[in-house]
Amino acid sequence: MKAIERHSRLIAENLATWQLPDFPENLYEPLRYFLTIGGKRMRPVLTLMGAELFGEKAESALHAAIGVELFHNFTLIHDDIMDAAPLRRSKTTIHTKWNENIAILSGDVLMVKAYEEICKQAPKHLFELMQIFNKTAIEVCEGQQMDMDFETRANVEIPEYIEMIRLKTSVLLGGALEMGAIVAEASLEDRELLYTFGQELGLAFQIKDDYLDLYGDPKKFGKQIGGDVIANKKTLLYLLALEKANAQQIETCRQLENEPDLLFKVENMRKLFDQLEIPAAAHKHMEAHFNKGMLALSKISVKDENKKDLIDLSNYLMAREN
Amino acid sequence: MKAIERHSRLIAENLATWQLPDFPENLYEPLRYFLTIGGKRMRPVLTLMGAELFGEKAESALHAAIGVELFHNFTLIHDDIMDAAPLRRSKTTIHTKWNENIAILSGDVLMVKAYEEICKQAPKHLFELMQIFNKTAIEVCEGQQMDMDFETRANVEIPEYIEMIRLKTSVLLGGALEMGAIVAEASLEDRELLYTFGQELGLAFQIKDDYLDLYGDPKKFGKQIGGDVIANKKTLLYLLALEKANAQQIETCRQLENEPDLLFKVENMRKLFDQLEIPAAAHKHMEAHFNKGMLALSKISVKDENKKDLIDLSNYLMAREN
Repeated sequence: MKAIERHSRLIAENLATWQLPDFPENLYEPLRYFLTIGGKRMRPVLTLMGAELFGEKAESALHAAIGVELFHNFTLIHDDIMDAAPLRRSKTTIHTKWNENIAILSGDVLMVKAYEEICKQAPKHLFELMQIFNKTAIEVCEGQQMDMDFETRANVEIPEYIEMIRLKTSVLLGGALEMGAIVAEASLEDRELLYTFGQELGLAFQIKDDYLDLYGDPKKFGKQIGGDVIANKKTLLYLLALEKANAQQIETCRQLENEPDLLFKVENMRKLFDQLEIPAAAHKHMEAHFNKGMLALSKISVKDENKKDLIDLSNYLMAREN
Repeated sequence: MKAIERHSRLIAENLATWQLPDFPENLYEPLRYFLTIGGKRMRPVLTLMGAELFGEKAESALHAAIGVELFHNFTLIHDDIMDAAPLRRSKTTIHTKWNENIAILSGDVLMVKAYEEICKQAPKHLFELMQIFNKTAIEVCEGQQMDMDFETRANVEIPEYIEMIRLKTSVLLGGALEMGAIVAEASLEDRELLYTFGQELGLAFQIKDDYLDLYGDPKKFGKQIGGDVIANKKTLLYLLALEKANAQQIETCRQLENEPDLLFKVENMRKLFDQLEIPAAAHKHMEAHFNKGMLALSKISVKDENKKDLIDLSNYLMAREN
């Protein structure tokens, strides 16, 4: 756990001293505000660890790491508009606190700022950093579009759902790690293995997220329990339930989707999922991706002790309760 | 005129064969649609001319030019949302034809696609291309924010207005040219002169735009005449009028701003501007920037005949009636 804390402190300190212009105030003040909301800073930590894995100092990949974190925040600002979300980590979202136009534009400029940070890395790495970053950024947009499309679709297959979360969430973990590996001048083969590790870890991470949303401990989970059920979101739990349910259980599920009593809705959907043993089924999916990731990590041609921090981080992310 | 036509044909042909993925359809179909709406393709033409000025083939800067055009289209898509504009060049805007979320996200992915195109230029130029492109992209966002801020401000000074249009419009013309010059490996001094030329041309271009909006020939001008007056936009014409008007004329102006009969409003605002000799005053501003640009161009250390295409383009932009 020591490396995670050290790295996230490095990121936090850097973001705290990171300067944005004062003017125009309506463009930059929302960003100053949003960047203090925080979060796990998991993605930039991965970039730093990706560099360290191959014997490079964490600091050498700091600009790339900050760039990854800024990009992630850009996606959150625009996603919050699209989801009409009033809150993010219990704080008012930009489009609510200011307005939608300001949220669009400050998100836009944050994306450019992400590029600007990455471009502070040594020019000799720039081409390769841009290749993976552009590819990742495009895929994250594609994942977000798939997620929005799923809202209005009657049927979503589990492989489609996995592909959506791969694009929306997981590729950025893979990309963040690979950017660190590029700075450390790792071989192409090792870079690809590390990317796979990140992507599979990201899939396991997102499935854990789906699980915690309904099964998390209300005292430890930062958000309202059952948010996905209330919003009728087609999460992995929901799709697994539809797959396993008999006709009568599907009928119960459909009725609950229209249930106005939200406490009743969440409680009974959880009961239905329990009957169908969805937690175990979701864990099976999660573990499969986790193990695939660990297999890729094991194949990377560096000493085992160099991999310790990434294994610690993976275990921490899987054991987390929020 | 020949070079302009040749270059804009090269851009149009390239954009026509430019491939976007089929899936997710709701992400890419809006972009395919929007990119056919067209426009002058002035910015990418400038990038090609920037390369040719220093003896490089236009084609060598094609990816940078396409990147500049994609970036410009990204700004149009997001500006149209912010302005709640139903039409762009008589075609339905993306947020109207699809919805706002799709317009936000397809704009986002188009910005990344712009970076992706620029990154296809030779890696040895990438660092310098990114420096000018990032700076320009940030400034364009800042200009858009200033423009939005002006809407709700009681008083805007002329120098502030000039700064707003410099950021929102002109820096992209300077940046587009300089990117061509980078590909042609021009000296830093020549690059700066070319940037200044582009920026001043951009200022003159935008003032001409303000002028045409009220004084254009309805048969030749593509949009409704007087759109800015109807929207009570604080254009240079309006700000010059406020500066020159006496108390009674200011009162007339304020009354016209609340006039519900739009034809009457436009006609009488034009009459007021005529009394105040605003067309001549606006032309003075326009010419000052045009001349400053031409002076910078004259100092660039290449043969005069190499500058002919840029001079032709400048004259064409100043003489245009739409």
